[in-house]
Amino acid sequence: MPDEPLTYAAAGVNIDESERALRAVVGGIQATYNENVLGGVGGFGGLYRANFSGLNEPVLVSSIDGVGTKTKVAAMVGRFSDLGRDIVHHCVNDILCQGARPLFFLDYFGTSRLSGLVFEEILGGMSAACTEVGMALIGGETAEMRGIYVDDEIDLVGAIVGVVDREKKLPRPKMMPGDVVVGLQSDGLHTNGFSLARRALFEVGGLSVRDEVPGLGGVTLGDELLRPHRCYFRALYPLLQEFEGIRAVAHITGGGIYDNLPRVMPPDIRAAIERRAWTPPPIFKLIQSIAEVPDQEMFRTFNMGIGMVLFLERDLASAVIQRLHMAGESASVIGELQKGAHDVQIL
Amino acid sequence: MPDEPLTYAAAGVNIDESERALRAVVGGIQATYNENVLGGVGGFGGLYRANFSGLNEPVLVSSIDGVGTKTKVAAMVGRFSDLGRDIVHHCVNDILCQGARPLFFLDYFGTSRLSGLVFEEILGGMSAACTEVGMALIGGETAEMRGIYVDDEIDLVGAIVGVVDREKKLPRPKMMPGDVVVGLQSDGLHTNGFSLARRALFEVGGLSVRDEVPGLGGVTLGDELLRPHRCYFRALYPLLQEFEGIRAVAHITGGGIYDNLPRVMPPDIRAAIERRAWTPPPIFKLIQSIAEVPDQEMFRTFNMGIGMVLFLERDLASAVIQRLHMAGESASVIGELQKGAHDVQIL
Repeated sequence: MPDEPLTYAAAGVNIDESERALRAVVGGIQATYNENVLGGVGGFGGLYRANFSGLNEPVLVSSIDGVGTKTKVAAMVGRFSDLGRDIVHHCVNDILCQGARPLFFLDYFGTSRLSGLVFEEILGGMSAACTEVGMALIGGETAEMRGIYVDDEIDLVGAIVGVVDREKKLPRPKMMPGDVVVGLQSDGLHTNGFSLARRALFEVGGLSVRDEVPGLGGVTLGDELLRPHRCYFRALYPLLQEFEGIRAVAHITGGGIYDNLPRVMPPDIRAAIERRAWTPPPIFKLIQSIAEVPDQEMFRTFNMGIGMVLFLERDLASAVIQRLHMAGESASVIGELQKGAHDVQIL
Repeated sequence: MPDEPLTYAAAGVNIDESERALRAVVGGIQATYNENVLGGVGGFGGLYRANFSGLNEPVLVSSIDGVGTKTKVAAMVGRFSDLGRDIVHHCVNDILCQGARPLFFLDYFGTSRLSGLVFEEILGGMSAACTEVGMALIGGETAEMRGIYVDDEIDLVGAIVGVVDREKKLPRPKMMPGDVVVGLQSDGLHTNGFSLARRALFEVGGLSVRDEVPGLGGVTLGDELLRPHRCYFRALYPLLQEFEGIRAVAHITGGGIYDNLPRVMPPDIRAAIERRAWTPPPIFKLIQSIAEVPDQEMFRTFNMGIGMVLFLERDLASAVIQRLHMAGESASVIGELQKGAHDVQIL
């Protein structure tokens, strides 16, 4: 028999703390709402009007993803606000590869023991990122699970739903040899490769998040690693409406350029990428040199400085790149499509 | 410097195992597809035609949730197939509280180290459960995160999107004193209260999942705890179309009857529940007696034998209950709505 009667709080789940933390962020969440959101926080499901006037044949585009072990670096630094931004931007970029604009978002926050402050930082960043792209944060779940999560560790998951008119859906079938490959610069690691990066930098290299590493421009290693996942929606979405010659968009996440380009390529096409067309930022060289990671493995694990890739008609390249520059993106031609096997060659 | 060059597999992420496991379940996933699903497994986002002919003003209803520490009991028993079913049924029931029918589902599977066999069992059950309610399993993510998850532990998350015509959305505003409360029987714990249940049964009580406990009808404790979350969609959805007098539906999940009924109740209404209207199944008595859990805490943590609650016009009660019985549900009147504060009294 136990010394005192068991309660759910004593067994490791603190509903009150979760409700207190939710009250602290509810204003930010409600600021993401627009005229399509019906009902408020706390119902059994989020309600969003399927009001797609102007679209001939609306198609819902959805995706689910997590931020991976970037949460561990956030814990090392003690700053969590950008993690919310990370998962939103990751998901927005994913559905942008189908040409979709975001409608609504749901988050899942799993941890061993809820810290109200961490939750508030994350939900604050998440709400702000949703507002910036006109997306409603319509639902979420917080779970305290001791024994599943290592003490003080968290996992952060997001699910997104967007919409595209079927006739504007990407990739377009017309991709062909001679089309060019344009790369958009990333903001560091984004949310991929953190298991390898942490092992290389902290375990093998013995570095700390507080170290200032030569070549990183005077920021600490922690700040470099926590740079938020870049959101390409506002720069890219208008161009997708304007230029039919943009055939496909690929988000460079887990698996890198090697695995993500074939996801939007037809079977009889090869992507030939020119290694010297851009210089991977110093953080990637640092990881590679400390841990002697083979080139191929680097390109399979990290974005290597390219966060998003476009395939487009050769004639459009300079116009599209100029427009991307005007929208604040760094972009350049990094290769071309060729007749060949369904693969990527980085030469 | 490391002994050998670091690779992503050595750093704890095995992309090949994840791809192999995905190939094993892809047939089951594709069996969930219907004419509204465009494109296949592997794109950046799942595509679902927003084709809601017959609905005047379609509203998308979405929710995200996890199965909690029920995963630990599955690991103790070594059987994972029902966890996939658990998360699907949980989510389907949640959006049914708004009157919605399911359209598509996305899953997230987080773990320390991917076991292909566990993944296959879970995705197999998940696909089958989706097929049974006509829902497409349209996306998913698998994440291996050592250092975040305790060794061999998993978290399982699902996001659902469904649709309801705005005029049929629940709860209906007309709820009033005198309406009756009907309870539908649950199949054991469903997916809530497992932290408390495990602590009571295994830590305090010293029981094992292999024990046959008197009163559980000859099944082992493990089998009793792993009974899948009951899905009320097929029994209840047709009745929602037919009977406008069904005012509201509440899914009894975390927080129990106390917290879930007010989620669908107007501010000036109290729900008076008669404790003697049903007998909580033996598993709840076992947990309570071993750990001396107060009555109130039991009703705040567990469903106590009631998985779903309907509020309906008194005159309809016998007709609706009869129809529920014909559909295979056990259902009975367990209380009524009264004028009063926005709370629940269990007397």
